[in-house]
Amino acid sequence: MLQGIFTPNLIPFCDDGSVNEPELRRMINWLIEKGVGGLYPNGSTGEFIRLNFAERKRVIQIVAEENRGRVPILAGAAEANVRDTLEAAAVYADLGCAAISLTGPYYFKVSQESMEAYFREVARQSPIDILLYNIPQFANEISLPVVQRLAADCPRIVGIKDSSRDFPRLVATLHKLKPQRPDFTVLTGTEEILLPSLLMGADGGTIATSGVVPEVVMKLYAEFRAGRLDEAKRIQLKLLDLIEAMFAAPIFPEGFRAAAALRGFDLGHSRQPISSREQADLGELRSRIACILADCGFAEAAHACVRPGVCGARPVDVDAIVRNVLQNLKAGA
Amino acid sequence: MLQGIFTPNLIPFCDDGSVNEPELRRMINWLIEKGVGGLYPNGSTGEFIRLNFAERKRVIQIVAEENRGRVPILAGAAEANVRDTLEAAAVYADLGCAAISLTGPYYFKVSQESMEAYFREVARQSPIDILLYNIPQFANEISLPVVQRLAADCPRIVGIKDSSRDFPRLVATLHKLKPQRPDFTVLTGTEEILLPSLLMGADGGTIATSGVVPEVVMKLYAEFRAGRLDEAKRIQLKLLDLIEAMFAAPIFPEGFRAAAALRGFDLGHSRQPISSREQADLGELRSRIACILADCGFAEAAHACVRPGVCGARPVDVDAIVRNVLQNLKAGA
Amino acid sequence: MLQGIFTPNLIPFCDDGSVNEPELRRMINWLIEKGVGGLYPNGSTGEFIRLNFAERKRVIQIVAEENRGRVPILAGAAEANVRDTLEAAAVYADLGCAAISLTGPYYFKVSQESMEAYFREVARQSPIDILLYNIPQFANEISLPVVQRLAADCPRIVGIKDSSRDFPRLVATLHKLKPQRPDFTVLTGTEEILLPSLLMGADGGTIATSGVVPEVVMKLYAEFRAGRLDEAKRIQLKLLDLIEAMFAAPIFPEGFRAAAALRGFDLGHSRQPISSREQADLGELRSRIACILADCGFAEAAHACVRPGVCGARPVDVDAIVRNVLQNLKAGA
Amino acid sequence: MLQGIFTPNLIPFCDDGSVNEPELRRMINWLIEKGVGGLYPNGSTGEFIRLNFAERKRVIQIVAEENRGRVPILAGAAEANVRDTLEAAAVYADLGCAAISLTGPYYFKVSQESMEAYFREVARQSPIDILLYNIPQFANEISLPVVQRLAADCPRIVGIKDSSRDFPRLVATLHKLKPQRPDFTVLTGTEEILLPSLLMGADGGTIATSGVVPEVVMKLYAEFRAGRLDEAKRIQLKLLDLIEAMFAAPIFPEGFRAAAALRGFDLGHSRQPISSREQADLGELRSRIACILADCGFAEAAHACVRPGVCGARPVDVDAIVRNVLQNLKAGA
Repeated sequence: MLQGIFTPNLIPFCDDGSVNEPELRRMINWLIEKGVGGLYPNGSTGEFIRLNFAERKRVIQIVAEENRGRVPILAGAAEANVRDTLEAAAVYADLGCAAISLTGPYYFKVSQESMEAYFREVARQSPIDILLYNIPQFANEISLPVVQRLAADCPRIVGIKDSSRDFPRLVATLHKLKPQRPDFTVLTGTEEILLPSLLMGADGGTIATSGVVPEVVMKLYAEFRAGRLDEAKRIQLKLLDLIEAMFAAPIFPEGFRAAAALRGFDLGHSRQPISSREQADLGELRSRIACILADCGFAEAAHACVRPGVCGARPVDVDAIVRNVLQNLKAGA
Repeated sequence: MLQGIFTPNLIPFCDDGSVNEPELRRMINWLIEKGVGGLYPNGSTGEFIRLNFAERKRVIQIVAEENRGRVPILAGAAEANVRDTLEAAAVYADLGCAAISLTGPYYFKVSQESMEAYFREVARQSPIDILLYNIPQFANEISLPVVQRLAADCPRIVGIKDSSRDFPRLVATLHKLKPQRPDFTVLTGTEEILLPSLLMGADGGTIATSGVVPEVVMKLYAEFRAGRLDEAKRIQLKLLDLIEAMFAAPIFPEGFRAAAALRGFDLGHSRQPISSREQADLGELRSRIACILADCGFAEAAHACVRPGVCGARPVDVDAIVRNVLQNLKAGA
Repeated sequence: MLQGIFTPNLIPFCDDGSVNEPELRRMINWLIEKGVGGLYPNGSTGEFIRLNFAERKRVIQIVAEENRGRVPILAGAAEANVRDTLEAAAVYADLGCAAISLTGPYYFKVSQESMEAYFREVARQSPIDILLYNIPQFANEISLPVVQRLAADCPRIVGIKDSSRDFPRLVATLHKLKPQRPDFTVLTGTEEILLPSLLMGADGGTIATSGVVPEVVMKLYAEFRAGRLDEAKRIQLKLLDLIEAMFAAPIFPEGFRAAAALRGFDLGHSRQPISSREQADLGELRSRIACILADCGFAEAAHACVRPGVCGARPVDVDAIVRNVLQNLKAGA
Repeated sequence: MLQGIFTPNLIPFCDDGSVNEPELRRMINWLIEKGVGGLYPNGSTGEFIRLNFAERKRVIQIVAEENRGRVPILAGAAEANVRDTLEAAAVYADLGCAAISLTGPYYFKVSQESMEAYFREVARQSPIDILLYNIPQFANEISLPVVQRLAADCPRIVGIKDSSRDFPRLVATLHKLKPQRPDFTVLTGTEEILLPSLLMGADGGTIATSGVVPEVVMKLYAEFRAGRLDEAKRIQLKLLDLIEAMFAAPIFPEGFRAAAALRGFDLGHSRQPISSREQADLGELRSRIACILADCGFAEAAHACVRPGVCGARPVDVDAIVRNVLQNLKAGA
């Protein structure tokens, strides 16, 4: 059963716009070494929509190669039609992924019934477990009654990742699905409410922030698992400033990519062109993120924080945090 | 300069889900013989989002091969990123297309500035003219100030096709763009208001209904060109029932595909799975469309109209309509 | 039957925030002298929602007193519940109004069925004819099937005023309602598309711009009635700059109130507080509107146009326009 | 400082549509006896928009008279303009209310700056503390930066009640406002997430369900206060079925009114007409709610539960619950 913190993989690009494979490999290893619970390539944070089909398959191959079975891989597989989705599913199954994640159809509006028919058709033929991916901001919403019917009839559909930001909906999902099918995984994709989601019974989350500060997100999760709610709440609230800053970028996920660059990775330029004015905004935002990171004890970001008076006051001992995380994880295991 | 009625190409599928190429070729020839002003493959009606990149390129190749230069081709080329869009643009230029059509980015929300940067980047490198394609229902809206700035700076951007259904916006576009750049094409994609769009100065439209009843839509256009507004208005209003019925299908563009099937083509099953209940709805809708078509004089649809008492009363002389269209077109030329 | 151009009455306020009754009376007489087809107090432009019930009744009383039966009055009567709406209806009937106008319920979302029940209940008891007022931007949308059912069953419901800005919807309304009930009035409330609405069969409009430049809007209408479409289209397009400027105000209907002030009326301050920064924006907008008005020949606005180089080039002969309007109206009568 | 559970007052109506004052008085006393933390008349649940100004003032008077100072009263005072709002504020201050609650302006869209100007103007003159009421479903959203600026500058603005259902927004509000102004009250209006809101630091909530089952909601709150999170979570989840059923009514707040009727009150008919088909739906819903209430031990509802096989299985000891609540409240005090 899928649970814990899955890290959505950011994609580094070369100057010619192609995927920077060596840097992607380096990031994967770094994340696993930092203790993340799983990897989640080809999600929204992974900009699957800005890659083509061949590139998407290549990304999963690279992730699987570097992972070498260390953590479970949840592979985004939302292709344009049933045939292509099933082709992706077969490839990702062969590569040893734990499950695939599927958004509802995007671009066109489709009825809930047609969406249900789509998931049933894929589930009937898929060689690999499926996690529904609800993100109504970008793709057709997967309504809760559809989730209930699919969970009742399709063993291949093993859970849902909800990025709707709709917490009453998440709570209702837990309330209805867990009694119906206790093995049904419910993950949140809304970073700002990871802790209350866990408190109400979610099994974990796909948390893009864990691709930037895996030490902190894993500590939050470890504190929750250890029952230290006050400490978990303190970390959750502390993370809000960083999350808000990363979402403040003119286009998604440039704020997250800028933050990961401040941790020492070469993310390159976005595939989505950005105006020069927005580039300037992004430069300011990068400094703001750098200050937050430096304030959290990530010394490697301090050089880019150009308002030290505001931010860099009390550097935190990162090594101590990491030690804590590992101890807590051991204690929780 | 692009003008007149462009027909969005519907895509027929084989039983195994692949594109039915022979039937697509037959439809292309039929449309050209019926007098449509141009072809528009890989638009929303052409379900570009449900094809993969290779299939999209293949569709344009087939259209170009069958067309043999008879009418201009407007080729949808909205790919996932600048590199792939430019690759498509190069292929479609080599195939002799008149222009490509580009939606704003979809799935992610992007700022207007980033969208503008995207179009500037493509326009800077494209070997073929570009028509902006505004369809905020499905993709990021291209705001009117962005259109004005692009029209001012980018010679490759030669017009806009507006499918927003927002008529005040279309009128504002005409009011602002035509004085600024008289050669800038403005097409409507909203079938229900083709005539008033033409009356206010639009250069034509991409009208999916012209893929079903090209005779009628071309007659509407010919009557408008000949200054016979009352007759043009009568046809526009008469078309509304057919258009409404085709949009009433549970998923788009199944109503249009069902109607084209009633004209004698084998469209096959949708790539988007449909529930059995919706299949039944679609069956009823097919009969309703058949009755409307039969009532308009398209005898080939009469067999599928199961409520003849309501609909099939006064069959119209189709040959006379076709003769009229051709005469009017000659008169208008 | 209601038809032609109804002018939504702007409300002038005194310094203490109360309704400036003498100035309201002066505006009413001015509009009637300029030849508007009817008056429409207590609509959105009349800020009915920012008045209380007593004030709304007082406004209608003043309008009726000044009008002295010269033009038909369409009185907004959307109160909080059936009882209050019926009380308003009785008062406005006694005052000799031609009809009342009713939005769907606002604030709460209600189902289409409940909305229909609401209109049926009011229609059953109303002593005065009712015009449905569809404005989904602000109140629950009145769907077209509901309009059709109400038109079929309720003689008191005599038409619809559609301010949805959705032109395909307006065309569908005309196509469905006119054959069903030829006496059913269809008015547009979307200023930018008055002419195409008339061309497709609308009976007129509630046009806030006619409260600012009644001469021009009435000329547009007269040209349309006289079959001079090119001239009508020229006026419609010319009006777009003014309309756009008036809608550009930070809050509605301050742009319209600023423009009416430039015609010589004392509108006073808005009941909705405005920030100082927005007050400054409004000042700039006032100048922009003044330039447009001066350019249209309204000399009284010229003093407030601070960029004469841009705008005041070719003053138009207003008296000639007014003479034309009156002649055309006589000719059309 | 406002905190704890405030019960939004439902309004009972007589057959002639007037407010049923004796029954309203009986409900007020019942709620206070059941231990609710405060009363909240003239909110959305209190249908303030379907009353007129005189009726709204009368409702507050009745609530104040019956309350006799026993619990704090939060009085909804969202009138049509600043003058009327201030008149209401003065009346409610005289009646001894603890604070007034103000939505953003409704019907018209207003800019955030204009909304801020509105609240500043009211706050400057109000004789009573003000709680902002954010309910973007029905009224203009009060953005978080506006809340921060108002909290910084306006001592009269003492808190916010957030009914947006947007939990990330609520958490951000707590994170930003509490350090800025520790006495700033943050209440949730989203029943389904009362507990996680409390866990993240909210001071309480306006919970319509507490007008139906005050015993249960107060027990949830008491368990939270006592640190018994598992029990609090069990109650929160158990409440979800009831809440979902009450929101399933065709119009709001008929589901809540039907449920209160099952507790023994005569709520009468809605002021919003309801179609006969929806009346039938409401009848079925009433039975479903009755079964849930009976299952929770509220024996007085059992007679209306027509599917006893499904629902009425294990009646709970209500007296024991009530005893528990009172004990817990004492323990928490």
